Amino acid sequence: MLLRIDHVGIACRSLDAAIERYTSVFGLTVVSQETNAEQGVREAMLATSEALPSAWEGSPPPHSPPGSYVQLLEPLGDDTPVGRFLTRRGEGIHHVGYAVPDVVAALETFAGRGVRLIDERPRHGSMGASIAFLHPADLGGVLTELVQPRAARETLCPG
Amino acid sequence: MLLRIDHVGIACRSLDAAIERYTSVFGLTVVSQETNAEQGVREAMLATSEALPSAWEGSPPPHSPPGSYVQLLEPLGDDTPVGRFLTRRGEGIHHVGYAVPDVVAALETFAGRGVRLIDERPRHGSMGASIAFLHPADLGGVLTELVQPRAARETLCPG
Repeated sequence: MLLRIDHVGIACRSLDAAIERYTSVFGLTVVSQETNAEQGVREAMLATSEALPSAWEGSPPPHSPPGSYVQLLEPLGDDTPVGRFLTRRGEGIHHVGYAVPDVVAALETFAGRGVRLIDERPRHGSMGASIAFLHPADLGGVLTELVQPRAARETLCPG
Repeated sequence: MLLRIDHVGIACRSLDAAIERYTSVFGLTVVSQETNAEQGVREAMLATSEALPSAWEGSPPPHSPPGSYVQLLEPLGDDTPVGRFLTRRGEGIHHVGYAVPDVVAALETFAGRGVRLIDERPRHGSMGASIAFLHPADLGGVLTELVQPRAARETLCPG
């Protein structure tokens, strides 16, 4: 049910500095920058090379683009989830996101297996994905996100 | 140069309890269990569904198996890197590992871009991979591992 690691979410104090680091050191490609007021973050998605369309042109996978991303997260204020994380732990890995084929079905399944849900229903994530968070207390301290990526066809042929 | 997220490394107090959780809740598949005395851990690699050979049979990729893993890490003692992490932070995400085509070349490149290396030379990682760690102080608090997976051909046709 977990297809792959979709991304790691990394909390940073300065989104611009973090983007500069990840592009200049690792050569990652910024594919999206958004402000998500609901989640209290400015964020960027940076693609690893297998997540770039050039890596799979001619054979797009059936349900979602493959590959994985680094998500950089700058809080909009101290009193936000990522702001509190920075105060408590400093910069570093904030959460992991797994790609799933159907986030509603996944939530129902995992809730039935005793995992508390932070989000009972999916909400809007980066790049048009439907996402939901599971509670770290039931998952060994790991804040876990489920990501149903926007379908490959829509990504390739928007509109 | 970073192909994909190969794995997230998760520090846990009990490997057996963590394996039970990740298999029963998420349906992940244990593909390897090892003790790595050099790194001071007992560990397990659990495959997401795209990392299982059944997902890509007939079209193995050229350089390495695709997909990503959850790596569960139980320290062999308190005075080990993962043991100290647990004392300081509690259970949770310890590091992220990226797949690279050539770990020696990647180390040289990233060192040239000013990142301090924990490992000057690759060492032995899970499932026959060559791995090396980069220092979190130069990467926004993120302990970062480079992973050159054992080639797909070797994985499919050992010996």
